[in-house]
Amino acid sequence: DRTKHKHRGRRNRKTKIKNKKKDHCWICNNIGNIKIGNQNQLMRPDDSNLAGNVHGGIILKMIEEAGCIIGTRHCNVQNGDRCLAALVRVEKTEFLSPMFIGEVAHVTAEITFTSKHSLEVQVKVIGENVLTGAKKLASKAALWYVPCSLKNVEKIMEVPPIKYASAEQEEEGRKRYEAQKMERMETKARIEEAVAPPANPEQHTVGFSQSSLIHLVGPSDCTLHDYVHGGATMKLMDEVAGIVAARHCNTNIVTASVDAINFHRKIKKGCVLTVTGRLTFISNKSMEIEVMVDASSMVEAEMRKYRAVTAFFTYISLDKDNKPLPVPSLKIESEDEQRRFDEGKARYLQNKAKRLSNNQGQQ
Amino acid sequence: DRTKHKHRGRRNRKTKIKNKKKDHCWICNNIGNIKIGNQNQLMRPDDSNLAGNVHGGIILKMIEEAGCIIGTRHCNVQNGDRCLAALVRVEKTEFLSPMFIGEVAHVTAEITFTSKHSLEVQVKVIGENVLTGAKKLASKAALWYVPCSLKNVEKIMEVPPIKYASAEQEEEGRKRYEAQKMERMETKARIEEAVAPPANPEQHTVGFSQSSLIHLVGPSDCTLHDYVHGGATMKLMDEVAGIVAARHCNTNIVTASVDAINFHRKIKKGCVLTVTGRLTFISNKSMEIEVMVDASSMVEAEMRKYRAVTAFFTYISLDKDNKPLPVPSLKIESEDEQRRFDEGKARYLQNKAKRLSNNQGQQ
Amino acid sequence: DRTKHKHRGRRNRKTKIKNKKKDHCWICNNIGNIKIGNQNQLMRPDDSNLAGNVHGGIILKMIEEAGCIIGTRHCNVQNGDRCLAALVRVEKTEFLSPMFIGEVAHVTAEITFTSKHSLEVQVKVIGENVLTGAKKLASKAALWYVPCSLKNVEKIMEVPPIKYASAEQEEEGRKRYEAQKMERMETKARIEEAVAPPANPEQHTVGFSQSSLIHLVGPSDCTLHDYVHGGATMKLMDEVAGIVAARHCNTNIVTASVDAINFHRKIKKGCVLTVTGRLTFISNKSMEIEVMVDASSMVEAEMRKYRAVTAFFTYISLDKDNKPLPVPSLKIESEDEQRRFDEGKARYLQNKAKRLSNNQGQQ
Repeated sequence: DRTKHKHRGRRNRKTKIKNKKKDHCWICNNIGNIKIGNQNQLMRPDDSNLAGNVHGGIILKMIEEAGCIIGTRHCNVQNGDRCLAALVRVEKTEFLSPMFIGEVAHVTAEITFTSKHSLEVQVKVIGENVLTGAKKLASKAALWYVPCSLKNVEKIMEVPPIKYASAEQEEEGRKRYEAQKMERMETKARIEEAVAPPANPEQHTVGFSQSSLIHLVGPSDCTLHDYVHGGATMKLMDEVAGIVAARHCNTNIVTASVDAINFHRKIKKGCVLTVTGRLTFISNKSMEIEVMVDASSMVEAEMRKYRAVTAFFTYISLDKDNKPLPVPSLKIESEDEQRRFDEGKARYLQNKAKRLSNNQGQQ
Repeated sequence: DRTKHKHRGRRNRKTKIKNKKKDHCWICNNIGNIKIGNQNQLMRPDDSNLAGNVHGGIILKMIEEAGCIIGTRHCNVQNGDRCLAALVRVEKTEFLSPMFIGEVAHVTAEITFTSKHSLEVQVKVIGENVLTGAKKLASKAALWYVPCSLKNVEKIMEVPPIKYASAEQEEEGRKRYEAQKMERMETKARIEEAVAPPANPEQHTVGFSQSSLIHLVGPSDCTLHDYVHGGATMKLMDEVAGIVAARHCNTNIVTASVDAINFHRKIKKGCVLTVTGRLTFISNKSMEIEVMVDASSMVEAEMRKYRAVTAFFTYISLDKDNKPLPVPSLKIESEDEQRRFDEGKARYLQNKAKRLSNNQGQQ
Repeated sequence: DRTKHKHRGRRNRKTKIKNKKKDHCWICNNIGNIKIGNQNQLMRPDDSNLAGNVHGGIILKMIEEAGCIIGTRHCNVQNGDRCLAALVRVEKTEFLSPMFIGEVAHVTAEITFTSKHSLEVQVKVIGENVLTGAKKLASKAALWYVPCSLKNVEKIMEVPPIKYASAEQEEEGRKRYEAQKMERMETKARIEEAVAPPANPEQHTVGFSQSSLIHLVGPSDCTLHDYVHGGATMKLMDEVAGIVAARHCNTNIVTASVDAINFHRKIKKGCVLTVTGRLTFISNKSMEIEVMVDASSMVEAEMRKYRAVTAFFTYISLDKDNKPLPVPSLKIESEDEQRRFDEGKARYLQNKAKRLSNNQGQQ
């Protein structure tokens, strides 16, 4: 099931490309197909919580970095302006098994679909305990990128097509492309106000656990374009969501999944990010947390604060043996909270149904 | 006791500002008054010592970041050059209760006084144990900023005035302003030589524990101006002071307080900082450490090394139950050391007297 | 055995330099001679493995930073273009005793030889346990730098000569200079292919433990020139080598030494580094790992991937009491692997012989 690829539109190429190995792709600096293989990263103390569980945000950041590198490389094989692959969407991502400090994360990325102006990258993260040699699939993700010109960040370049292993594979990719396009159009940037919580909120209310952080965007958060890496934003979002979940449960909590995230607007260096998280829905053993990222300039008063990203994170609470614990129920105090709870419940039931049908489809 | 504020001098503003909520301040992106509320940050392993106590320098850095953001926002509401709030002074700051890894630091900041060219920000840090829900006041600080033009860092802009809740409040702010102005004028950049210690110093002498570190200023230390953030400097100062204290005591040590710090001169990207700490005074259960920050350029030989900041850090030594331990006394070996010891003792007694009178005033 | 130095060629110097202390070197901002003394750094959780051993890569990075600062300062004392000292070679470096989290690393650096266009810096790292006061020599290294003009990175500037304590000292320096020059000429950038391992490699084969990581070069990795710091590259190399060693042994492993490293080509900001490590040779209690650093641009398709650095790291496996453990032998599967094994064995025997003759010379 490995894909191969052609690279059209390279008429004026000056240097002669030799493929030293039969199926070595010089573009991707990799063997066999459009892949980043064998990317390894050691998980450190700062990457994890007190119980040693690696934060979901760290995994999302690794995934996005791999996607950005492979996407950018692929889009620069043909002539024309040099460009950077900018993240526009991450499909729903599940964290299948927890990773721990001292383990090695093994990241592989592959371009699995290209449209005229966008490309899909599928990324897999495998956690490896180097002391026992045990490996487990930690996460799988699908990300969509568009190539932005380095000269003019608003100019979207064309994506060189990949060659598919089969017509079916291409067709499946096209279906995923159409589905996400539809969803991105439907999902406008939700401008729900991040209202400040009351002064002395009661425990287990939405206001009690609502949290936000403020981050001044520095050079290490940014791409060559001086725009914030999608992965850096997702890491901050997961940080806030984790604080919300811990405040509600007072236990060890971990990210179970993130709903599809659309990156509506870019965030420039020098901006201040306000990242706010609040509980929307609680099932028996999970919490859904809505995270809103607002960007504003410290120095340009004319530039209004704007909503850059919204996403729903699902957290679970774990006991000492990493078994899920029941979650305290949520005290609803307003109509808005009830509406968000009902919307969260609908998402929860829809995901559950999807999981069930996927499982049956595989049997 | 919440302040309100007006924003004069905004004649040519192009965009129309609507306050969606009655007391929402669009400038501060916050509700109610000029505040940064609910800034939350999770304390990580790298933020703390082996006993899990968060370094005072990490808390100072968080405080300064909040102050810089709120100050810069406030100063850019009116027309004219865009500017950045540059830290010029931090009032004496006490670390009231220790914070630990895994706790969430909750930072709130408020502009409490404005003069024509400077503003005062008061910042509060609350430590929250998310497992027990317990909260305690970790630190309170008052910082003074001046707005420097982004076009010309030497040009100080005007600060838009805030509106006070009462005439008394404004009057108290003015007193604090006059007091710090006087002190900043009196305190010249002390140019005490940071003499290298002797080759084989005896234990418990000043030379034995004297320590210094060298830091090459990189992009992540700097503001949009490419000058070092005050918070980054304070973090380095606390690192050196902590090494001095640990070398003297050979125990677990924590920052108890920092005397008022004046930032005499700016430090530019590409500079090398030499941060030196040495013991000046020791009471029964505390150590005073003088920390000197010298900046120099690696590449401009004409630019002499200059003293950028000086401050006195007070450390205490803790046993396994976080109770203060007696500190070994200091062996004085020179007249300079004796003079510094006497000066430190005067500061110690003055602070003690001030604490007593404050306590009596509150009764 | 302290060196003194003269600084010629400073005809047009504008500012008057006063040496306040008799033997204070204003150039090096230090007392006595061309040194960086008392550089102290606290070792943090992220700097070390699960057993608390500080990674060799962290120590190499500290060493290189000290060398870069002292080298750059020295080369900018005379008139002409301002320049930065760029690392071209690190001599074989041994890690003599392990360092642990919470210890303080004490780094001293000294310029020990200058040729017309290069200089040698010797750096010593002492590990100090601040709780017991115990100190031990953690590592000693010798680094070679050349001064690159800040205006034109390809222009190598002249190095101001140092003054030696004795003619013998200068002569010994010249011998080291000639020896490394010879070796750098002989060692071409080895372009051994980093072939991807087979799909399901058997345990204890070369393919089984082969690992690589991909790193997008960001601003915090770079010098004022926007080229990658040698220390940042060595830290990445040690990270990969550590993963290879742990995968082969499934135990706690530490860096024992690094063979001489030549930095063949510079690496610019915005590049992608692919760092690959594979086992070459195994003795009874040590593993030799070849690490290859390939740089490529994400955006310039014409710029072929190139080999920037190659080095051999030697790791040992430790039990719970930090005693060396036997290492599983290596299953050789190809002629190339056998050739590399034999070359590694030759290096191993040569080093052993050199150690023996050094020991005898000292007796």
